[in-house]
Amino acid sequence: MAQRDVVPSPVPMKWVGPLRLSGNVVTGEHEVPLATYETPLWPSVSRGAKISRLVDEGIVATLVDERMTRSILLDTDGAADALAAITAIHAARPELEATVAESSRFARLIDIHHQIAGNLLFVRFEYSTGDASGHNMVTHASDRLMERILATVPGVRYGSISGNYCSDKKATAVNGILGRGKNVVAELTIPGAICSRWLRTTPERMNELNIRKNLIGTMLAGGLRSANAHYANMLLAIYLATGQDAANIVEGSQGITHTEVRGDDLYFSCTLPNLIVGTVGNGKGAGLEHIERNLVAMGLREPRDPGENARRLAAMIAATVLCGELSLMAAQTNPGELMQSHIALERTPAAG
Amino acid sequence: MAQRDVVPSPVPMKWVGPLRLSGNVVTGEHEVPLATYETPLWPSVSRGAKISRLVDEGIVATLVDERMTRSILLDTDGAADALAAITAIHAARPELEATVAESSRFARLIDIHHQIAGNLLFVRFEYSTGDASGHNMVTHASDRLMERILATVPGVRYGSISGNYCSDKKATAVNGILGRGKNVVAELTIPGAICSRWLRTTPERMNELNIRKNLIGTMLAGGLRSANAHYANMLLAIYLATGQDAANIVEGSQGITHTEVRGDDLYFSCTLPNLIVGTVGNGKGAGLEHIERNLVAMGLREPRDPGENARRLAAMIAATVLCGELSLMAAQTNPGELMQSHIALERTPAAG
Amino acid sequence: MAQRDVVPSPVPMKWVGPLRLSGNVVTGEHEVPLATYETPLWPSVSRGAKISRLVDEGIVATLVDERMTRSILLDTDGAADALAAITAIHAARPELEATVAESSRFARLIDIHHQIAGNLLFVRFEYSTGDASGHNMVTHASDRLMERILATVPGVRYGSISGNYCSDKKATAVNGILGRGKNVVAELTIPGAICSRWLRTTPERMNELNIRKNLIGTMLAGGLRSANAHYANMLLAIYLATGQDAANIVEGSQGITHTEVRGDDLYFSCTLPNLIVGTVGNGKGAGLEHIERNLVAMGLREPRDPGENARRLAAMIAATVLCGELSLMAAQTNPGELMQSHIALERTPAAG
Amino acid sequence: MAQRDVVPSPVPMKWVGPLRLSGNVVTGEHEVPLATYETPLWPSVSRGAKISRLVDEGIVATLVDERMTRSILLDTDGAADALAAITAIHAARPELEATVAESSRFARLIDIHHQIAGNLLFVRFEYSTGDASGHNMVTHASDRLMERILATVPGVRYGSISGNYCSDKKATAVNGILGRGKNVVAELTIPGAICSRWLRTTPERMNELNIRKNLIGTMLAGGLRSANAHYANMLLAIYLATGQDAANIVEGSQGITHTEVRGDDLYFSCTLPNLIVGTVGNGKGAGLEHIERNLVAMGLREPRDPGENARRLAAMIAATVLCGELSLMAAQTNPGELMQSHIALERTPAAG
Repeated sequence: MAQRDVVPSPVPMKWVGPLRLSGNVVTGEHEVPLATYETPLWPSVSRGAKISRLVDEGIVATLVDERMTRSILLDTDGAADALAAITAIHAARPELEATVAESSRFARLIDIHHQIAGNLLFVRFEYSTGDASGHNMVTHASDRLMERILATVPGVRYGSISGNYCSDKKATAVNGILGRGKNVVAELTIPGAICSRWLRTTPERMNELNIRKNLIGTMLAGGLRSANAHYANMLLAIYLATGQDAANIVEGSQGITHTEVRGDDLYFSCTLPNLIVGTVGNGKGAGLEHIERNLVAMGLREPRDPGENARRLAAMIAATVLCGELSLMAAQTNPGELMQSHIALERTPAAG
Repeated sequence: MAQRDVVPSPVPMKWVGPLRLSGNVVTGEHEVPLATYETPLWPSVSRGAKISRLVDEGIVATLVDERMTRSILLDTDGAADALAAITAIHAARPELEATVAESSRFARLIDIHHQIAGNLLFVRFEYSTGDASGHNMVTHASDRLMERILATVPGVRYGSISGNYCSDKKATAVNGILGRGKNVVAELTIPGAICSRWLRTTPERMNELNIRKNLIGTMLAGGLRSANAHYANMLLAIYLATGQDAANIVEGSQGITHTEVRGDDLYFSCTLPNLIVGTVGNGKGAGLEHIERNLVAMGLREPRDPGENARRLAAMIAATVLCGELSLMAAQTNPGELMQSHIALERTPAAG
Repeated sequence: MAQRDVVPSPVPMKWVGPLRLSGNVVTGEHEVPLATYETPLWPSVSRGAKISRLVDEGIVATLVDERMTRSILLDTDGAADALAAITAIHAARPELEATVAESSRFARLIDIHHQIAGNLLFVRFEYSTGDASGHNMVTHASDRLMERILATVPGVRYGSISGNYCSDKKATAVNGILGRGKNVVAELTIPGAICSRWLRTTPERMNELNIRKNLIGTMLAGGLRSANAHYANMLLAIYLATGQDAANIVEGSQGITHTEVRGDDLYFSCTLPNLIVGTVGNGKGAGLEHIERNLVAMGLREPRDPGENARRLAAMIAATVLCGELSLMAAQTNPGELMQSHIALERTPAAG
Repeated sequence: MAQRDVVPSPVPMKWVGPLRLSGNVVTGEHEVPLATYETPLWPSVSRGAKISRLVDEGIVATLVDERMTRSILLDTDGAADALAAITAIHAARPELEATVAESSRFARLIDIHHQIAGNLLFVRFEYSTGDASGHNMVTHASDRLMERILATVPGVRYGSISGNYCSDKKATAVNGILGRGKNVVAELTIPGAICSRWLRTTPERMNELNIRKNLIGTMLAGGLRSANAHYANMLLAIYLATGQDAANIVEGSQGITHTEVRGDDLYFSCTLPNLIVGTVGNGKGAGLEHIERNLVAMGLREPRDPGENARRLAAMIAATVLCGELSLMAAQTNPGELMQSHIALERTPAAG
């Protein structure tokens, strides 16, 4: 098998944009790299980026929150013991914070939540993790917390280092409600004339489609805390191009497109509460020079305060998602347009 | 921007296995390629594959169903019109089937479902699509159906070519309940002695962990039709290595790990009802020779009945998921093991 | 304990309306009885009923579907056996239909769906049940089907007469997607002048509130196939007053309020896909003369085709839900109005 | 219509038990009143109560948390304004607490959570409410908070007094994750011999059924944070008999039955995180003497610290739910038993 071993998998990549961006973490015009087999994504996101440059402030990206989590599972004899244990855990908060701070230069324990089901106690530790997405950092820190808890809190036994109340790479409700990853909102207000000329649609038709398809259609399908057309496509492409753990698109793609008709303008927003991203850590190391070059080209290798580069990346990602969402939604307001553009684009060889 | 344009994104890839496989679509021993930045996945799946070879029939993969869908959205004046329209659509089934058959050599209309919400009518067309995952095939066929319906059914107006009741790249309930993609179950029955020696655990501890973490933990997190530890990781890696539209891991990773203690043995199963996969189509064309070589090496370029190669791939994927799930679950039955193995593995350069 | 035994529980009841109604099962003006401790519900529904009488066709109620279900659970050795079993069950459809028809004068088997998870097979039998809600009828029929299947289908063992894939008195996705109970849409188109005079609001504000609160707010809360303000209140009250199994408000209250601004008018609709109701059966028998009198007064004791009275009741219930939903939504468009009306109403003794 | 106006609705009521109870809020043996049209519920709960008396400590009910919530909806121009507003709201916490304390003798603001979706800000106020379930108390307090926020926080406009992120009488994820109502766990450990004699089953069969039906079956059905057989039945009956707002069974019935085989014993637990109940307030006032008598007979009219009687009621309710759940689950382990017992019981006139 030797000859078949580690070889790069050639997902084709292209830079699109630049997107014009403002907000509480990053401003200016930025190109973004998209690695995907779905090549119609490139012109689609490019069309959205074009719109962003036609509007003065461009896309406004607001970082609302950030944290990374791991929930351990503890076994007890019954709910009274579980309640006593979680009370003791909260009381030991300073010691637990110290344990975490010793486990890593960057990990900090910032909150604790829990669930009790019968005799089972799920404790969700919430951390800040600097510029890393933090999967390993929080597992390592939680390992230390688990050791300490087993040694100091009576009546609890090891259940699992991960009890799925975290929850990683799963579409659940807990991440959006309690927070996991970066919570970012991207917004763009588009004059009606631009809608008409560049998107071949109107604010009214975009708003109507969003209500019917994204809100009602997803709800009828049994969707969970999600209402969008295709966040997953943009996330996958930019995650692959920037060395993220792309399986996190599962929860990352849970987000809400909300639109409003404001006078003659279209207000178009994408809220992404669960973006697990980082600029350091796995996927960014030795042997992946290409990822490194992409991060440098995106301006995310500048010396900044810990966490600042990751926040910038999150804002760029949310803006990229908005561009692709805007473009596809516009296409779907017109009968036949989606298919025609796919046909036109895919006749060109995918990686040509 | 020219110099930055289309370049391959080097996600590192490695072959693991072979997995021993039996069932209703494919048998024998098979290596599978995994492209991922999360390199600990390689030894993890390999450990599961090793177990599969220690059991005579290996992993049994059963294909339960297959179909691909697209739901259009029609606008009407009210529910009475919507009801009349869907009645007319069902009555025109033979004509609609003919329209689909004319749209493609492979697409066939096999079922129709719908939802009415107020005046909105969502019609979910279900197709067989041969060896393709079928995204474009069903969009194209649905475009034709839309045209025909708008021309022949009174009282309906174009809403959207996709109404999100499909639903593509979103974690919803409809796909598992009505079917979308391949529905595959992978099962492995492991003697207790093998659990003990190769997985450092017991059938009882595995079963207990599955109930507490995957079933109860996911439910507490507000999960939806899903109960597993990390299907998304294996799916991403094999999707990237075989040219799939990897954003489909969003719904693909909704699946249920079910275990039982059977005498001294562990029954371990992974049910994946929403696998969107194909061996032809996007991601498999010109300029992606590496994908082509992988498919050849997996034995999926043999001349077979339409759909047969895609079904084989789906069975291999489900078996791969089982291997990775089994290995991680076993690690989590032991305090500290998960972190220790990550540390050991990641000290080796990721792509070294 | 004898003196404490069976005594009537005095939930206060009042007739409200009449509601003006049209549609595919019942027309005319109808009063409806509401039994509730939440007495502000009476004037709230009355206000909606008033609006319905100001519009020529009144509330249009469209019955979209009806069926009652029970899902049995079968245990097998593995998915291949489960697949063989469900194939055999589908092949025996005529015999199963005959078994059901023998079990009851009214029960008829109309469809079968299933789920396979590992070795477990859930079979969801779908029945028509005449004028009964059918809880016992379908349990009895499924008991007979279970017996027959255990006797004739190889490789299956008894799991449970109910496998929760039915699903009864639980908020799930399956009922709305596959159908359970009556699926009814109630619609009312209200001129802007009536909105302004009688609801102190405008079509635009109602529509905006519906999008933000019912669609987006519920989605953020992690709601499931549901977007409404308070269907549960009206359902409880009319279920208690007409002898329904009121625990079925759990799934009955999953429904979608959809509004549109149509020129100067407000289109207001309530879609209730899971109404479990009947005019015969439990809660309607000896010793419950009051229920009987209510059903007579509602015109639901006329000799009609089997199922016709139950369908009329379902339409009246959906219309009642619309009246209460409309009124509360209107109140919430105005700051302070909700609380002021509660205070005004509850100063009057609840059952005075 | 005068003659038809307010009349008591005769839901038949019966006392069952006594249940033996211990835990952190109430101990001793207690009868509970159940008002229901589903009369087989009486012997079913009685059977569970009988089991509780055969075990020394009886059912252990642990109150884990309590709070009542209302989420207001604020409109802003964009996410940056929404973020600034929620920051200001958190900073004004002491003033907001004072505002709430002035609004009521019992309401206290204990926590604040929020969600931002685009320009929309949902603020979830969490309160303690003494012995009342608190629907009106928290609406009133939130009205005052809304007034204050609109007057003092720049950039926000009235959206709705309830934004459905509360969320009341809806099955959502937020209530279980952030808390709403009483969170109670009821547990009973039953020796195998008692299982066998009184429940005609074994710990192993009960545990197996719970995993397959309640955990897996509900998950396949697309259930949400819920895994039980029929909590809604017991909740409805005791809510009606004690004057609760019974529409709250919608979220109240979201709960998890968790079982374990412990040596020869069965550990059986019911976790109910969303019990909205009170011993004062609506449904308990003038004209409802029967409710008053029931509360007196349950020992819930003793002078105790504020909230103490409501907590006792919550514990009794959770224990009652356990009794009914235990009994039905046991019946379903045996083919045919459920139907036979229904037939036997319902031949007796329902209210005879």
